[in-house]
Amino acid sequence: MIEALKNQYASISDSHIKKDDIIIKALYQRVKMVNESIPRFLTITPPDEMYLAMHHLLDAGGKRLRPSALLVAAEAVGGEPEDVIPAALAIELIHNVCLIHDDIIDGADMRRGYPTVHKIWGVSGGILAGDALYSKAFEILSYAKSGPSQIVESMQILSKTCIDLCEGQWMDIDFQKRNDVTESEYLQMVEKKTAVLFAAGLKIGAVLSNASREEAQALWDFGCLAGVGFQIYDDVIDLIASEGILGKPEGMDIIEGKRTLIVIHALSKGVTIDAFGKKDLTRKEISGAIKILKETGSIDYALNVASSFIEAGKSALGILPDSEAKKILVGFADYMIERKY
Amino acid sequence: MIEALKNQYASISDSHIKKDDIIIKALYQRVKMVNESIPRFLTITPPDEMYLAMHHLLDAGGKRLRPSALLVAAEAVGGEPEDVIPAALAIELIHNVCLIHDDIIDGADMRRGYPTVHKIWGVSGGILAGDALYSKAFEILSYAKSGPSQIVESMQILSKTCIDLCEGQWMDIDFQKRNDVTESEYLQMVEKKTAVLFAAGLKIGAVLSNASREEAQALWDFGCLAGVGFQIYDDVIDLIASEGILGKPEGMDIIEGKRTLIVIHALSKGVTIDAFGKKDLTRKEISGAIKILKETGSIDYALNVASSFIEAGKSALGILPDSEAKKILVGFADYMIERKY
Repeated sequence: MIEALKNQYASISDSHIKKDDIIIKALYQRVKMVNESIPRFLTITPPDEMYLAMHHLLDAGGKRLRPSALLVAAEAVGGEPEDVIPAALAIELIHNVCLIHDDIIDGADMRRGYPTVHKIWGVSGGILAGDALYSKAFEILSYAKSGPSQIVESMQILSKTCIDLCEGQWMDIDFQKRNDVTESEYLQMVEKKTAVLFAAGLKIGAVLSNASREEAQALWDFGCLAGVGFQIYDDVIDLIASEGILGKPEGMDIIEGKRTLIVIHALSKGVTIDAFGKKDLTRKEISGAIKILKETGSIDYALNVASSFIEAGKSALGILPDSEAKKILVGFADYMIERKY
Repeated sequence: MIEALKNQYASISDSHIKKDDIIIKALYQRVKMVNESIPRFLTITPPDEMYLAMHHLLDAGGKRLRPSALLVAAEAVGGEPEDVIPAALAIELIHNVCLIHDDIIDGADMRRGYPTVHKIWGVSGGILAGDALYSKAFEILSYAKSGPSQIVESMQILSKTCIDLCEGQWMDIDFQKRNDVTESEYLQMVEKKTAVLFAAGLKIGAVLSNASREEAQALWDFGCLAGVGFQIYDDVIDLIASEGILGKPEGMDIIEGKRTLIVIHALSKGVTIDAFGKKDLTRKEISGAIKILKETGSIDYALNVASSFIEAGKSALGILPDSEAKKILVGFADYMIERKY
């Protein structure tokens, strides 16, 4: 079991896996809890095809980092992970809605090694499966074992976060038409598009477990900072990982003309990347573009920035009492920029 | 003011307007409350274009029947309409999400006399504006002045209803590929696609106002029954109202090949409608199809069924104490099958 997970959560070196065996085990336990909750809360009823479309991407896998982080956050403030499983699943469902709808927007054919939802069920199927998962997330969140005030606060956090997710995605699309996107604009976009959902999960785990305001805020800050680091590293992975690992072609960001931190850095150095934003690129053209980004030092720059965010995130955890859960959160943060996919 | 509303809520005959002046006034007051809450809860912030896309259809008008019904339901059980305005707006936002996403699915160009959201901001803009309104609805609902338990229950009602809306829309699309849709299947689809949102609004208005279980259930039943009547009548309007009144071309259901009760009735009488489901129909072909449906008695049949549902809905209100609000609800129900658009 652990061996299989080691492959799934392959870290950069074998020595690292040994060092962080506890993190791998901890992740595995939480992923298992989240996965087991899926059939419990998301049964297939008529119209069956709609529920199959809702399950498709969820059943195709995924790292389940966001819901796992929520479960650990609950523990870190003295709560019971079992009580907040509905909230963890809600966060994973929202993440899946974003992927399903973004894949329609990006016209993506593959995700997690399978055809995207709209490739199978059409654009209408993708829109509706996403909308239904959205609603299901809010329904399931309400079943968390906590007080009604805590549930209302969690729903406010989640709904505000979902608006941020839309704003982040809107900005991302907007940036693709611009050549003057600044690093600060990029970081704001990434915070909204990716980081806040980590932060929301962590804070909701804390709020539902009756954490203090300070603890809940610290977990939010941790999620925001580590989440930005996660996304910057994700942009690096898009360039350096192979299709076999990604479950989708590498260099997609180049083809889509995404303004990642790497690209913004390269542009600021006066580099021109001809392949950028062109459809039907050959593998050779993509490799050429990646080579330029490496030579300009843009990939290393992004890795350094990602690392700074992860370190800042870990510092935010300072006010939490020492515990096994806190150690796991620190390990999570490290894992975010050491994973291979 | 009332004169303008009389035009907006034009009833079938002048004598009817005189009789139901109280209903027209009551509607106008509630519509005003809902409209005034829009800028208060939905401010335009960066990225401005996203918020403009979210506002577009909302600002284009609409009858606001669902949120108005919610406000009256609160009054009917002794609550304060002011306290539940956020919930009323939430219901209207969800209704708008459905319209925006359905317009993408149907490839519709016009709505409420204006280009549809995706015609202006593209499919990606339509998907994201809808998603953001979805989240905003849940956020705004949480601001209703009521106890946390009542808010959690309202959120459960709304989230479950949103799943029904998706199921209903999925069924509607599915039915267009079938020739053997039964009346019972159609009614189930319409209940999910249209009626439950009326029902949810009415029940939420009651729950937030601390109504008894029985009162809340009666208002739900009223909404479900009257909502089905509303939709059957809406299908009739699609055939008999002019483009100037509808804000979109008449006979769209014929072009889209929708299995409405009218069509199901005609098919059961062995009638064939050649124009059905064909794109690029001329006005003459559409008129021809409508003439056939009239001659088969299918339009009259649908009007009778709609009327039965409205009557059953009014009966469900029996357990509520007599009040001005209860009278308005009865008037609402009558209006649903007497309006011109």
